[in-house]
Amino acid sequence: MADALDWARRAATVGEVPVGAVLLDARGRLLAAAHNRVETDRDPTAHAELLAIRAAARRLGAPRLTGCRLYVTLEPCAMCAQAIALARIERLVFGAYDPKGGGVEHGARIFEQPTCNHRPEVIGGVLERDCGALLKDFFRARR
Amino acid sequence: MADALDWARRAATVGEVPVGAVLLDARGRLLAAAHNRVETDRDPTAHAELLAIRAAARRLGAPRLTGCRLYVTLEPCAMCAQAIALARIERLVFGAYDPKGGGVEHGARIFEQPTCNHRPEVIGGVLERDCGALLKDFFRARR
Repeated sequence: MADALDWARRAATVGEVPVGAVLLDARGRLLAAAHNRVETDRDPTAHAELLAIRAAARRLGAPRLTGCRLYVTLEPCAMCAQAIALARIERLVFGAYDPKGGGVEHGARIFEQPTCNHRPEVIGGVLERDCGALLKDFFRARR
Repeated sequence: MADALDWARRAATVGEVPVGAVLLDARGRLLAAAHNRVETDRDPTAHAELLAIRAAARRLGAPRLTGCRLYVTLEPCAMCAQAIALARIERLVFGAYDPKGGGVEHGARIFEQPTCNHRPEVIGGVLERDCGALLKDFFRARR
């Protein structure tokens, strides 16, 4: 999660909402890491999680990331949560909770849906204060 | 929707789940079209809708597709539905309903969530029989 936080900090320096994600394989080796790039890439889907999932799948040459673990500084939105399910990621660890835009513990609660094809293990609130402070500082500075 | 169906048929010929999507701008001009490419691209997020949204945003040079209309042959999953909301697409028209994997009229019902940032107009069931038959034939042939 400390690495994911570093990626989030990099996002802030380029004016992107500071969210970072790191994807490890089943043996704990780094597969991919990314920060939010919505504005840079002019891509509404360029959330850190989606970019990391796509990069890891490209690297493994497979559309399934079975056994992999995703660390992300903010609770994923519904788009990213469903992508995590589609990719068959084994464990999701996230930092700050997101009552407004989250889709794991809030809103759509993707993994609790009876239609959900795959449910990862979920651990929320890791380095929550640091992950949340980065976001708060970013939005405060832009107001 | 007839164009989206053509894209779906192309998907079937390359062994992809036959779902097609077409994105038009506010004036009805074609911005992007795609079919499902999960296996070809080895990308769990390569659903027709997500590919069309990313291509259209790239073309417009903006992460928001305000005023645009998306036609897709199958009810979007939760990932694609949330991407539609993030992209601020104005109208979603889809063909077949998807009780198993859909995230609009089933499961997560993304646009009905109080946390949903943007709600497009939704029209489901357009050319429903043709869109659904294509999927049924595809899966029957693979069994």
